[in-house]
Amino acid sequence: MSRIFKSLTSVENALERFSSYIPSMESEELPLKDASGRILREDIYSPMDIPPFHRAAFDGYAVRSVDTFGASRNNPITLKVIGVIRPGDQEQYDLGEMEAVEIATGAYLPSGADAIVPLEYSRRVGEFVEILKQVSPGANVDRKGSDIEKGKLVLESGTYLGPFELLLLSSLNITHVRVAKLPKASVISTGNELVELGSELRMGQIVNSNAYMVSSLLQGLAEVRYRGIARDDESSLKSLISESLEDDLIITLAGTSVGKKDLVPKVVEDMGGRVIVHGLSIMPGKPTLLAVIGKTPLIGLPGMPVSASVSAIEVLIPVIAKMLGIKGKIVWPEVRAKLLRRIASRPGVRHYVRVKLSKDNGEIVATPIRISGSGIISSLIKADGFVIVPEDVEGYEEGQEVQVLIYKRWLDL
Amino acid sequence: MSRIFKSLTSVENALERFSSYIPSMESEELPLKDASGRILREDIYSPMDIPPFHRAAFDGYAVRSVDTFGASRNNPITLKVIGVIRPGDQEQYDLGEMEAVEIATGAYLPSGADAIVPLEYSRRVGEFVEILKQVSPGANVDRKGSDIEKGKLVLESGTYLGPFELLLLSSLNITHVRVAKLPKASVISTGNELVELGSELRMGQIVNSNAYMVSSLLQGLAEVRYRGIARDDESSLKSLISESLEDDLIITLAGTSVGKKDLVPKVVEDMGGRVIVHGLSIMPGKPTLLAVIGKTPLIGLPGMPVSASVSAIEVLIPVIAKMLGIKGKIVWPEVRAKLLRRIASRPGVRHYVRVKLSKDNGEIVATPIRISGSGIISSLIKADGFVIVPEDVEGYEEGQEVQVLIYKRWLDL
Repeated sequence: MSRIFKSLTSVENALERFSSYIPSMESEELPLKDASGRILREDIYSPMDIPPFHRAAFDGYAVRSVDTFGASRNNPITLKVIGVIRPGDQEQYDLGEMEAVEIATGAYLPSGADAIVPLEYSRRVGEFVEILKQVSPGANVDRKGSDIEKGKLVLESGTYLGPFELLLLSSLNITHVRVAKLPKASVISTGNELVELGSELRMGQIVNSNAYMVSSLLQGLAEVRYRGIARDDESSLKSLISESLEDDLIITLAGTSVGKKDLVPKVVEDMGGRVIVHGLSIMPGKPTLLAVIGKTPLIGLPGMPVSASVSAIEVLIPVIAKMLGIKGKIVWPEVRAKLLRRIASRPGVRHYVRVKLSKDNGEIVATPIRISGSGIISSLIKADGFVIVPEDVEGYEEGQEVQVLIYKRWLDL
Repeated sequence: MSRIFKSLTSVENALERFSSYIPSMESEELPLKDASGRILREDIYSPMDIPPFHRAAFDGYAVRSVDTFGASRNNPITLKVIGVIRPGDQEQYDLGEMEAVEIATGAYLPSGADAIVPLEYSRRVGEFVEILKQVSPGANVDRKGSDIEKGKLVLESGTYLGPFELLLLSSLNITHVRVAKLPKASVISTGNELVELGSELRMGQIVNSNAYMVSSLLQGLAEVRYRGIARDDESSLKSLISESLEDDLIITLAGTSVGKKDLVPKVVEDMGGRVIVHGLSIMPGKPTLLAVIGKTPLIGLPGMPVSASVSAIEVLIPVIAKMLGIKGKIVWPEVRAKLLRRIASRPGVRHYVRVKLSKDNGEIVATPIRISGSGIISSLIKADGFVIVPEDVEGYEEGQEVQVLIYKRWLDL
């Protein structure tokens, strides 16, 4: 066993060694409405103040605070109401001494005013208003620029543009943003046993299903170009790789045969490419390949579906994240759960054990679906996530509390 | 205060009361390649076995196990090799007594054979092979149907189709699936102060940014149809709502003015509709409206951006999930973190406090960004998630461990 072992690389080490071969995507300018889910590739400095004007935080009366000093219910001070401002109104007012303007939340503070007396501390009497409480300068006013100041750095390059980032950018009246182009990712399946979806399956044939998994996983992160199935011979694979060299990334999906496990690295080297990492210390996912041909990085995912899935999550997504220039790591939902059965693992290898989550007396519990069997597709569906057993841990005991990485987006607990 | 209080409804109660007004979407058939991210609307029974044939789990020799009984390194048994099968091969073999076929992982088990002797327990000698270890029937064979049996229920209606579900469906050679149609969701902004993105902002005007937040949040869940900005008068709002009544859901985004807070419910009732819930016991998010006009549900989100965001997460998404027929709840990433500052809250109201996550000596800590201020857009960007303070809890103390709902997809901790 130890002979095989020596050649295995940890995921972190592999990504680090591969790092200098991962190109950074160019950027493109998009209208804001098309930028949701994309990665910002410029620093955004606020072009304006938010709020863009001193804004009433309450319904009430805009006043000169100095006029209200000493006001109370027992000693109301009477101001003259010279107008009314609602949000969106364009009328301009200029408050003089002992004057007020009726105002609604969100409206701009008229010139001369420096505070709002909320409705509940006022009593309207015809064209006058009695102020029942004194207010200090700035009271109940959202000051211009108090949320975001003009010129301030508000979003850094590398930020994922989600709903709240779009909220911010549109509030700043920013119509276009520079984002990372999505990498064109060629997907090449390999294996004589593979056929396309919808084909009639003859003896020994299976559908090329990993391509569907990878395409779905990369939705929004890459522009997947499916190149077809290479036969288990060098010329067939070479020809599909050659077609893909102009793309930003090549993903090969190996067949299931151990016998051909060296086909992809061999072809890579024949084509003048370089194998950077072959074999990861994870299980499933071990037979992963990181290589480069010319300037094009190539990631060889294992053929076994569960292996391919783990490897895609742990290696492929981080590589694409680096191409896109994303700051930070993807956040997978995680939960603490009590383990209902023991998990065994081999030291030196990081294990991904599929578990099903459920509730037992309000407590979240995790049942391991199957410890091994990287070809077992049903286990990925039955399970809700992975318990990851680190390299230096020898399994987990029944009853132990473990961390579960949830890979489902909707969960019925 | 108690007068306002009585009219507030908990989110759970509100969703329950609204439940009978939420229509279920019709289904449509899609090619599998277009079904990623959609909600299955049929039960899927496996049309075939997986594996579809008895399959070699190792490289080695396919044998009749009975022929190997008693074999050991000291007492090898010699079989005649009558051929070789690699994955995808079509040749048919029929093993006779004392015969073997060389086989690669993933290939079909030839007729007559019932076990695989792994390579390491064999020694090839010309057209013969010496078997060095006896194997029992079924050894090292993935039996036909052992992963998924033909006829078995593999996916239930209501399942979200993610990468692994696509892996399964394509493995089963299923080319089309019936999924829920995406609801057509009309988005109507309201407010005299609002202008469209890219307009020149005059005094008192702000950009209609909530529409961008909602569209981004509903990506993949609904087909958003932006209807424009209704002025703060009944006829303008009525006209936009009338245009939208054929859609599956109407979302109104109120402006920021308290003065017009009853405009949407008033128009709903004028149009013969019914207000089901108005006012939720959450903060921010209180001024949320759930109503129905004819058969069209209408959700009125608050105008304040943070309120609108919380309300969209807590009410809008669950309503759309029900329309789509999704089983389960959306899984937001959550993390336990130590609170670096006290959080105050009002009993009877569920508070959503924005917090920034960071690491302090390897421990995850949460800093509350701002306790109140539902208009503060920058707080949503600075923060990574919410600490949710339940109705029956009066805030959290500094140093306390709290649960943080992370709303960012990528996190730089």
